[in-house]
Amino acid sequence: MIHNEKIDMILSRKSVRRFSAALSDEELETLLHAAMSAPTAMDYQPWHFVVVNDNATKENLRSFLPYAKMINENCTGIVVCGDISLYEEVSKRDGEDNTLYWVEDCSAASENLLLAAHALGLGAVWTGIFPLESRISKLRETLALPENIVPLNLILAGHVLSEGRVKDKWDTSKIHYEKF
Amino acid sequence: MIHNEKIDMILSRKSVRRFSAALSDEELETLLHAAMSAPTAMDYQPWHFVVVNDNATKENLRSFLPYAKMINENCTGIVVCGDISLYEEVSKRDGEDNTLYWVEDCSAASENLLLAAHALGLGAVWTGIFPLESRISKLRETLALPENIVPLNLILAGHVLSEGRVKDKWDTSKIHYEKF
Repeated sequence: MIHNEKIDMILSRKSVRRFSAALSDEELETLLHAAMSAPTAMDYQPWHFVVVNDNATKENLRSFLPYAKMINENCTGIVVCGDISLYEEVSKRDGEDNTLYWVEDCSAASENLLLAAHALGLGAVWTGIFPLESRISKLRETLALPENIVPLNLILAGHVLSEGRVKDKWDTSKIHYEKF
Repeated sequence: MIHNEKIDMILSRKSVRRFSAALSDEELETLLHAAMSAPTAMDYQPWHFVVVNDNATKENLRSFLPYAKMINENCTGIVVCGDISLYEEVSKRDGEDNTLYWVEDCSAASENLLLAAHALGLGAVWTGIFPLESRISKLRETLALPENIVPLNLILAGHVLSEGRVKDKWDTSKIHYEKF
């Protein structure tokens, strides 16, 4: 196992769920820059980001997102969405269904965003939306999302009030050589 | 925009497709540690990693993976897979389909793996498998994957022969405030 500051940053990221202050504009911009640095299939960059700071919207989100009940005025909400029309067109052209590439692209972007928060000494947590239809439809209404835009998750980010715990998930039984 | 070494590491990751040597055991272990540090829904950690170094297997992969034709003896192949049975059980229990959480978890793990390669001065590239059925079925046969294990991608990683280009994907039209 090789250690350096950058590797240890990746290994020590953790979910933070209690915040003391929302992101500054510059912090938010940095996190979104990191998110948009992820790789995407065919370089389609299908992502969109809806930033939520309004308290009435946050109250609404709390009412139907059980794992995002801690969203309040002391953190910034970022809904990572995918434009599903891009890969739908490719799928029609190629006669093979690769629509779900948007989930992979937007998940890689989300992980970059979480890591960037950690790299700035901030905290963040990923709360799931897709593929749960009940959450998607309510979020669609709340954020006025067009038909082709699907929300993947709601990330909460901000200044850390209470540190989460780093989990050791290393498990050699998950590693296989040559064949499963 | 805030810069530090860790943020700049995330921003400067790029796809590397030409390699001079495969990963050492210690490099491989570090990349897999990083992958297994990603967050997962309900902490289910549905990932599995099949490491491919055998040249006959690589030749086989080249024959049906158009975007992985550069896999050769100078790089290590890592097939990131998901155990779909975990979320299938939860879906049955909850009466809502959240099977696809495995795609999000394994994509976050894949991004961590790519970043760890970059953090070590190595290179890597993500080549797509899921959701393309034709690729999944051939890979299932090649790697003897059980029914509940689905391959997400094939990552090539190794020492860099030729640097890829860093793409600037920053696009403020992808950022929305309060509503889409």
